Amino acid sequence: MGEPGPGADGWIDGLAELDLDRARRRGAPEAVLADAKSVEQVGAIAAEYARLHADGREDLGPVLFTRADRQRAEAVLAALPQARYEAEARILAWPAEPPASSGGEVIVACAGTSDLPVAREAELTARYLGRPTRLIADIGIAGLHRLQARLPELRQAACVVVAAGMDGALPTVIAGQISAPVVALPTSVGYGVAAGGHTAALTMLSACAPGIGVVNIDNGYGAGHLAAQIARWAPAPEDHS
Amino acid sequence: MGEPGPGADGWIDGLAELDLDRARRRGAPEAVLADAKSVEQVGAIAAEYARLHADGREDLGPVLFTRADRQRAEAVLAALPQARYEAEARILAWPAEPPASSGGEVIVACAGTSDLPVAREAELTARYLGRPTRLIADIGIAGLHRLQARLPELRQAACVVVAAGMDGALPTVIAGQISAPVVALPTSVGYGVAAGGHTAALTMLSACAPGIGVVNIDNGYGAGHLAAQIARWAPAPEDHS
Amino acid sequence: MGEPGPGADGWIDGLAELDLDRARRRGAPEAVLADAKSVEQVGAIAAEYARLHADGREDLGPVLFTRADRQRAEAVLAALPQARYEAEARILAWPAEPPASSGGEVIVACAGTSDLPVAREAELTARYLGRPTRLIADIGIAGLHRLQARLPELRQAACVVVAAGMDGALPTVIAGQISAPVVALPTSVGYGVAAGGHTAALTMLSACAPGIGVVNIDNGYGAGHLAAQIARWAPAPEDHS
Amino acid sequence: MGEPGPGADGWIDGLAELDLDRARRRGAPEAVLADAKSVEQVGAIAAEYARLHADGREDLGPVLFTRADRQRAEAVLAALPQARYEAEARILAWPAEPPASSGGEVIVACAGTSDLPVAREAELTARYLGRPTRLIADIGIAGLHRLQARLPELRQAACVVVAAGMDGALPTVIAGQISAPVVALPTSVGYGVAAGGHTAALTMLSACAPGIGVVNIDNGYGAGHLAAQIARWAPAPEDHS
Amino acid sequence: MGEPGPGADGWIDGLAELDLDRARRRGAPEAVLADAKSVEQVGAIAAEYARLHADGREDLGPVLFTRADRQRAEAVLAALPQARYEAEARILAWPAEPPASSGGEVIVACAGTSDLPVAREAELTARYLGRPTRLIADIGIAGLHRLQARLPELRQAACVVVAAGMDGALPTVIAGQISAPVVALPTSVGYGVAAGGHTAALTMLSACAPGIGVVNIDNGYGAGHLAAQIARWAPAPEDHS
Amino acid sequence: MGEPGPGADGWIDGLAELDLDRARRRGAPEAVLADAKSVEQVGAIAAEYARLHADGREDLGPVLFTRADRQRAEAVLAALPQARYEAEARILAWPAEPPASSGGEVIVACAGTSDLPVAREAELTARYLGRPTRLIADIGIAGLHRLQARLPELRQAACVVVAAGMDGALPTVIAGQISAPVVALPTSVGYGVAAGGHTAALTMLSACAPGIGVVNIDNGYGAGHLAAQIARWAPAPEDHS
Amino acid sequence: MGEPGPGADGWIDGLAELDLDRARRRGAPEAVLADAKSVEQVGAIAAEYARLHADGREDLGPVLFTRADRQRAEAVLAALPQARYEAEARILAWPAEPPASSGGEVIVACAGTSDLPVAREAELTARYLGRPTRLIADIGIAGLHRLQARLPELRQAACVVVAAGMDGALPTVIAGQISAPVVALPTSVGYGVAAGGHTAALTMLSACAPGIGVVNIDNGYGAGHLAAQIARWAPAPEDHS
Amino acid sequence: MGEPGPGADGWIDGLAELDLDRARRRGAPEAVLADAKSVEQVGAIAAEYARLHADGREDLGPVLFTRADRQRAEAVLAALPQARYEAEARILAWPAEPPASSGGEVIVACAGTSDLPVAREAELTARYLGRPTRLIADIGIAGLHRLQARLPELRQAACVVVAAGMDGALPTVIAGQISAPVVALPTSVGYGVAAGGHTAALTMLSACAPGIGVVNIDNGYGAGHLAAQIARWAPAPEDHS
Repeated sequence: MGEPGPGADGWIDGLAELDLDRARRRGAPEAVLADAKSVEQVGAIAAEYARLHADGREDLGPVLFTRADRQRAEAVLAALPQARYEAEARILAWPAEPPASSGGEVIVACAGTSDLPVAREAELTARYLGRPTRLIADIGIAGLHRLQARLPELRQAACVVVAAGMDGALPTVIAGQISAPVVALPTSVGYGVAAGGHTAALTMLSACAPGIGVVNIDNGYGAGHLAAQIARWAPAPEDHS
Repeated sequence: MGEPGPGADGWIDGLAELDLDRARRRGAPEAVLADAKSVEQVGAIAAEYARLHADGREDLGPVLFTRADRQRAEAVLAALPQARYEAEARILAWPAEPPASSGGEVIVACAGTSDLPVAREAELTARYLGRPTRLIADIGIAGLHRLQARLPELRQAACVVVAAGMDGALPTVIAGQISAPVVALPTSVGYGVAAGGHTAALTMLSACAPGIGVVNIDNGYGAGHLAAQIARWAPAPEDHS
Repeated sequence: MGEPGPGADGWIDGLAELDLDRARRRGAPEAVLADAKSVEQVGAIAAEYARLHADGREDLGPVLFTRADRQRAEAVLAALPQARYEAEARILAWPAEPPASSGGEVIVACAGTSDLPVAREAELTARYLGRPTRLIADIGIAGLHRLQARLPELRQAACVVVAAGMDGALPTVIAGQISAPVVALPTSVGYGVAAGGHTAALTMLSACAPGIGVVNIDNGYGAGHLAAQIARWAPAPEDHS
Repeated sequence: MGEPGPGADGWIDGLAELDLDRARRRGAPEAVLADAKSVEQVGAIAAEYARLHADGREDLGPVLFTRADRQRAEAVLAALPQARYEAEARILAWPAEPPASSGGEVIVACAGTSDLPVAREAELTARYLGRPTRLIADIGIAGLHRLQARLPELRQAACVVVAAGMDGALPTVIAGQISAPVVALPTSVGYGVAAGGHTAALTMLSACAPGIGVVNIDNGYGAGHLAAQIARWAPAPEDHS
Repeated sequence: MGEPGPGADGWIDGLAELDLDRARRRGAPEAVLADAKSVEQVGAIAAEYARLHADGREDLGPVLFTRADRQRAEAVLAALPQARYEAEARILAWPAEPPASSGGEVIVACAGTSDLPVAREAELTARYLGRPTRLIADIGIAGLHRLQARLPELRQAACVVVAAGMDGALPTVIAGQISAPVVALPTSVGYGVAAGGHTAALTMLSACAPGIGVVNIDNGYGAGHLAAQIARWAPAPEDHS
Repeated sequence: MGEPGPGADGWIDGLAELDLDRARRRGAPEAVLADAKSVEQVGAIAAEYARLHADGREDLGPVLFTRADRQRAEAVLAALPQARYEAEARILAWPAEPPASSGGEVIVACAGTSDLPVAREAELTARYLGRPTRLIADIGIAGLHRLQARLPELRQAACVVVAAGMDGALPTVIAGQISAPVVALPTSVGYGVAAGGHTAALTMLSACAPGIGVVNIDNGYGAGHLAAQIARWAPAPEDHS
Repeated sequence: MGEPGPGADGWIDGLAELDLDRARRRGAPEAVLADAKSVEQVGAIAAEYARLHADGREDLGPVLFTRADRQRAEAVLAALPQARYEAEARILAWPAEPPASSGGEVIVACAGTSDLPVAREAELTARYLGRPTRLIADIGIAGLHRLQARLPELRQAACVVVAAGMDGALPTVIAGQISAPVVALPTSVGYGVAAGGHTAALTMLSACAPGIGVVNIDNGYGAGHLAAQIARWAPAPEDHS
Repeated sequence: MGEPGPGADGWIDGLAELDLDRARRRGAPEAVLADAKSVEQVGAIAAEYARLHADGREDLGPVLFTRADRQRAEAVLAALPQARYEAEARILAWPAEPPASSGGEVIVACAGTSDLPVAREAELTARYLGRPTRLIADIGIAGLHRLQARLPELRQAACVVVAAGMDGALPTVIAGQISAPVVALPTSVGYGVAAGGHTAALTMLSACAPGIGVVNIDNGYGAGHLAAQIARWAPAPEDHS
């Protein structure tokens, strides 16, 4: 693939240098954080992927564009029309089809309806990184019976991503009852002292149950990525003992 | 009782003016926060109560001295030898005997062994304000089955004080399963981002279950006081439907 | 009522599972936090209540939709035309008529005119949970005589909710003069270091008068809910001794 | 007096240069913050004042050494035996006798017994800057009647310093009832969210009553200094209308 | 004037109770904080003043409406057409003419051009409370010579209000060179760690020069009010020694 | 094993209820956080384990006592003399021998010498939960060549725990170069804005490389526990492709 | 040039006083922070420069207007049509041509595409202060190989400005590998706990590699100014040993 | 010098790997942060330097041990008796003699006497990195005339380190009057809102004068190191124009 730097594959002059080596180095291909870039910049990056693909690079996908609003999504789709856009999760995947699944199952659970967009971003990321996935919504601890009813499912997972805003207590309650690792995903859902998700993040870091790793607020991509790595070696859902 | 101000009953020149009217005005007698006062100041206040009592004031008790270490406790006991000192809860009560209980039961629950001193301060306060009380220890949410086993008891209470440090999630989990009000009592038990109890306090304020009122960190006295007020009109434990 | 989980009453696939058991378990029916949900999601939840009601479920109300702007209110009213919308308090109640009142009186007091929306949310919540209520506006401590003139009324309440922004000192001043519990409700009214209501929340937690339980900033619903629970067993206003 | 810099009066090589011009420039002589200096440094500064005085400089006093523990106090007294040490307020004044008083009265009020050391530091500072002073202790707002009983006195002051920890609400309550300026002095008395005095400082800055200027936490010296400046032109206590 | 409460002068049902006694009690008439009230509420308050004035109350003015945007200003002017609106300072005064000036001069100094709106609010407040005033703009410490050139003027003031954002260091630099009290007025001008004015407020509270009282961020009204109180007894500008 | 609650195995009256079911439920046995408990409490818990073991319970170990200073360690060793105490890591394991290792290798890397105690706590925890472990010390990013020299080892791990204080940047630099999940462990090593480990925790949550889960500051036990769970299904070190 | 103050060159009545002496005093001419000023104020300042230039002042440039949106840029260009506007960097330079370069090279490196606007502001500032400059984009540490490939260039610089948001770790990684000073420039690029750039700023201050000076978040102007000062005496790029 | 890693020069098994390549890579030799290491660890590191020196490595010095209390200093001196210990600055240098000076002068200025230890650490670091240095003490802005008297000296420096606690305003005032870069060094000297040095750090980052780079609180070593790098190419003091 040659040396990185000016002129290399993935070099977009004065703007970016795509990390094309990432699949080999990390076992997961690149993702482009769209919302901090201009529409033009996002479009230029998508066009470089298209150019490389047209040049015969077969090893590039799947590429994810995260936190993409409709305007940025359209800029990507203009260059990569085979991509798939999930508007609620604000994610684009190119190519549209996820790879064949392998490894253990990743379950993404969320506390409330409002956590769904971030939870869905996590689920899609894990799926495009090759894991079987499932989403369980609205099992917040204010009505604990709903959570307890889903425990048998949760205990089948190789890794559970738990998205929650407000008090962020759900990951602890789940982690204390299962044996798989929990990826705690604080969301910015909340108001007052819970505004922005900071309280949820603090609660998750302070969890009195072990077995929890926390990611940044609203970082559904990071949570799904980590979960996919964790579940990589676990038995497939049907083989789980 | 006369006007407040210099020379009145409870006036300790250049130091303090005891709030002797409090029982009438608020339905609960005065408490003296000991740890921010010098040993001499605490002793002078105890001596004034002793003097008033010797002068025939029968309506003063029970008086509580809170956050009293052993040195301050001894200063109080020197002036008020009938007082009772509970070292773990750092509380002194004068006179030693609590009033006959009335109203509904106050249950104080705590998440871990380390929360016991503050929980016990809350329980003793509620008892000296006249409520029947009970303490339930070590039902943290990392082992949820221990909490669920105590739910029938918790559902009998007129008010539940829930003391917790670290992630402070226990009040929400309890409040979501009972009908009585919960007084959430964050404790300073914790380390890292949970140090000092701030995360627990934020979690409790952000609780997604309604029915929770939060007090200051380690404020066992305030929690017990509020709980005693809340349980005042509720039926006595045996009459609870 | 059957087990919770997929297919149960209240199950809205991929979105939410209504907590229909809440009235039995907690003594107060469910509330739907509207502002963190999309208009479509709020409408779907209202439609599920309408469907259940049409199916003969008589035990569901009153249901509250809180923090509902006009757009979300219209989505609810489309499905539940019998609901009542209070625009200032951003609350919808279904059915429109509150239950017959029982228990002690809940008074909601607020420091300034700007605290009225949140105060009104608290008052309506307590009323729909079955308590007699009253609202006292604009008795901030900058003009203490206005507060002192209302003390006789405040002393009749079984519970007083005190809403205040800026310095948040009003709950302490009231709690120190009455015997009923105070629910302190910080509001986001303020600027500079008081912006967002954080200073008010801190002040309330630090109150030097006991008998105060604090809820989240702008959580009028939570304050009213807690106050209704507290006042449940107290004598009705006319019987108060 | 000559130019400032190496070799000038007040120059202590490699350590400090005393601000001997301050009385002329600011109308108040220098103060030495003792607690951030070593015992030796404090002693060296005292010795330089002694040397200058022995050299005939008559215009230096009164000099204050603030936040001086006993060890530092002894270092000062060794060099300036005519100084006076007030241990509770941790302040040394040299010479011991305050100047004849002029201007309006400065009243220092404090919320609780624990605020006394800082309040006394403020009072002594104002007195050594030449104002008539008075101290009113223990009028916290949890027992508002005690404060109201002292209002006639407070209304006589040309400036009121109000020291308070915990919720820090006392300055607002006083300022709303008098016409003189209030210097709000937050103290570090408190625990939990009130620890260190930060909540008190925020409350005071957020006060909804105008007429309040806030100084740093525990800055009794600064509060007394500002109050003395404010009261400078006001009529003497007996002439106050 | 009668008792406060329902039906009294200044009572606006369900909305507010004007503090008409304030001039007598505090020596300064009421101000209405407009931006946290709806346009209708501001209009209703203005209308009540108009009604009282029409009823013969001669003692009400001057009344200030602060933080009034154009929409709220128009609501006031509709009811009180004699009022004066200063758009930059967002302040309305009724009646338009300030009272005859008395007491010492209040100088308002500001660090940069961007601090002008808040500085002007402070100046107008002091003027409507009866002091002679002056405004000195753009003397930030990044170009210290500009400040030093204005020192002779600043030394004539009975009180100096210093408005500054960003690092908020200007009040210290001025206070260290004059004998009058300084009211430090942090502004929200700034970005990065200075955003919102919090750093400026902290700097001002931490000032190493005594003689500074701090008000809330952007609280030009409070600063001007305090300055007017401070300057009340000082000699008029021409008599200053 | 019977129901939890009073009288059950593991019940220590008025103090604690051991979570004996944890090995079955979570796949990892209980750990006792020692530093927030009194010496007597720690001793009583150790004695209960000894009693249960003497009663024939063979399934209890390994039990870890974490954050145990020498005094608490001696209380444990008095009851459980077969336990092993690692003073630097402040951890006790009972019984002393770790279980036979299974699953993939856990490598614990630390940025500086000062992070060693926490890193060692993580390593021992993972080992007592049954994983093969290795420790790599002093590869902070200020001298990046030291880290790069260890990359081949790091790439063999099934999970890497990265302990770092100060700026906390090491986990990102490692995660960007390997394919295994990284558990980021902020330590309280640092001063100034890095004091207490908060900056390190924030940096780790903000990491621009995906594949990182963060635990609480100084939570070596939690990091090792999570890493052991993650590495559970991975191939043993020698089989790693 | 005469005394500063009213009537002097650069005096804009009631608005600002330009610091025309700055080039002589500081070696760098004035910059006008545009975004906190109104369009009219910015235009008036530009007009004063135009007036002075027309009056024969030849020594004024280059003047920079920073943080100028298009509206403010147009106000400047109306008065100073020879100015150059760089929209991405939001900077205007007058006159358009930078001075001949001298001193060592300033390299501005940025972690991601989103940091480009601030990085470009830094680069242009250094160039208009007379240094040779270069920009290196998108070398974030998540893909360390891209950074390592640019090390030879970075080692040629006399000073490197490193702009980064999110975790802000890039300056440490660079500083540890070069001998020139690093100016760390945190950007507000980020979300969750990294929102606003505060985490990046904290990380940079906590850097474990020495040789780093930090400026305010998004302060590209300040970073470029400091870098230009640092590189002033260094050999020109071609002479670098 | 061989590859880094186990067995290399500087390798201390299980503890540390000295960065012996640093002088070549960074132009400045290693420093050992002593206070976060145990006495034994510090001693082991000193012993490794002694061993390497005895083995003929001539290129190692000067090595600095920073933040060394007396106990750690003795551990170093036992292994490296030629080292020099400066107790006030808590720094050890080995060998004792600094290198011949080159480059421009570094002046370290400090605001108050209490900032001297950190200021002295900065000065010694710059001197051992080869620069001519000078220390100017006690020129805080509360007495601005003292600072102005030293301006001619300050204007000769190639770089000025400014150490200040409390409000941290001194660096801005100096930077605005000189042309050399300023390294702003916040110190933890302060109390109340200034405690720990955070306010000083924020003020320095917010400085309205450009030309300032900030280091961590109390990081005298880092400030001196950066200043030495900055002054490297500047003319020697006597040649300065």
